Amino acid sequence: MPSRTLIRPLVRDDREPVRRLIEGTHRFTSAEVATALELIDEWLAEGEKSEYLTYVLEEQTSSWATVRGYVCYGPTPLTEGTFDLYWIAVEPVSHGRGYGQQLLAFAESDARRRGGRAMLIETSSQESYQPTIRFYERAGYVLTARIPEYYRPGDDKLIFRKALASTESHGDP
Amino acid sequence: MPSRTLIRPLVRDDREPVRRLIEGTHRFTSAEVATALELIDEWLAEGEKSEYLTYVLEEQTSSWATVRGYVCYGPTPLTEGTFDLYWIAVEPVSHGRGYGQQLLAFAESDARRRGGRAMLIETSSQESYQPTIRFYERAGYVLTARIPEYYRPGDDKLIFRKALASTESHGDP
Repeated sequence: MPSRTLIRPLVRDDREPVRRLIEGTHRFTSAEVATALELIDEWLAEGEKSEYLTYVLEEQTSSWATVRGYVCYGPTPLTEGTFDLYWIAVEPVSHGRGYGQQLLAFAESDARRRGGRAMLIETSSQESYQPTIRFYERAGYVLTARIPEYYRPGDDKLIFRKALASTESHGDP
Repeated sequence: MPSRTLIRPLVRDDREPVRRLIEGTHRFTSAEVATALELIDEWLAEGEKSEYLTYVLEEQTSSWATVRGYVCYGPTPLTEGTFDLYWIAVEPVSHGRGYGQQLLAFAESDARRRGGRAMLIETSSQESYQPTIRFYERAGYVLTARIPEYYRPGDDKLIFRKALASTESHGDP
């Protein structure tokens, strides 16, 4: 059955499917899942006024529609034009179909529209995050900083950055 | 008149003096002052359960007691043993008396007691922050990361780090 994808704001009925989706990646601890849901709840309560803009990618056919992934990002407090990507996840059975890159490109384009100059993404140096890191690098993110022993001994924080302004789009200063 | 200093938890009656103290440094924008007060309010509402531990340094004589400075720090969410120093300020007329270093040493020692392995401090690369940066460096902090153009164009974020575990106290990995 032919399908198409749509990226739209997350609404209340998406909360439970997105929770299952996040847990289904088996990539996040229960504390991390709880944090992801707190941001979603702030978006549901405050909408555009919240600092956590949250969108889902929905796959649609003529007879059904299913949420396959979601992204949460927002303007970094106390900055002018810096945005943070807080969360991005795609359900495992849909990996390899480009949904993650679609969600990331959407977030960047929306951030740019809102005056964003750069997007930052923080991640872990753990071996299991290597596919995630390659995903960001394919999208043009550059490793900008490393905080040693951040998450726990032996687990550094990596900060990736991508300039969003069109004049900077071919490189990072 | 002989005086002594005491570092104690911030209580509700300190909120207004501390607000004036923060504004009196002329170092923070109104958005930054508002953020500092939000953290104080979370400490006042939640106490030890909040993620923002907040203490004041009080100068005392036999006849008066005045708050001269304050510090706000706490465990970094989703980490094991990383702490952030969110805010530290000393009223300008008391600069040069070591109150800032006393507050910083108190925060480090309390973080260590709570299982802290390292303290992080984020600051701006702006010229006006040079005295602040020297203050952190004198206390043993090492510049660990720089995020270009973070706060605004031309204004980078600097991340300083100090290992807190006694076995690491003579150097940073």
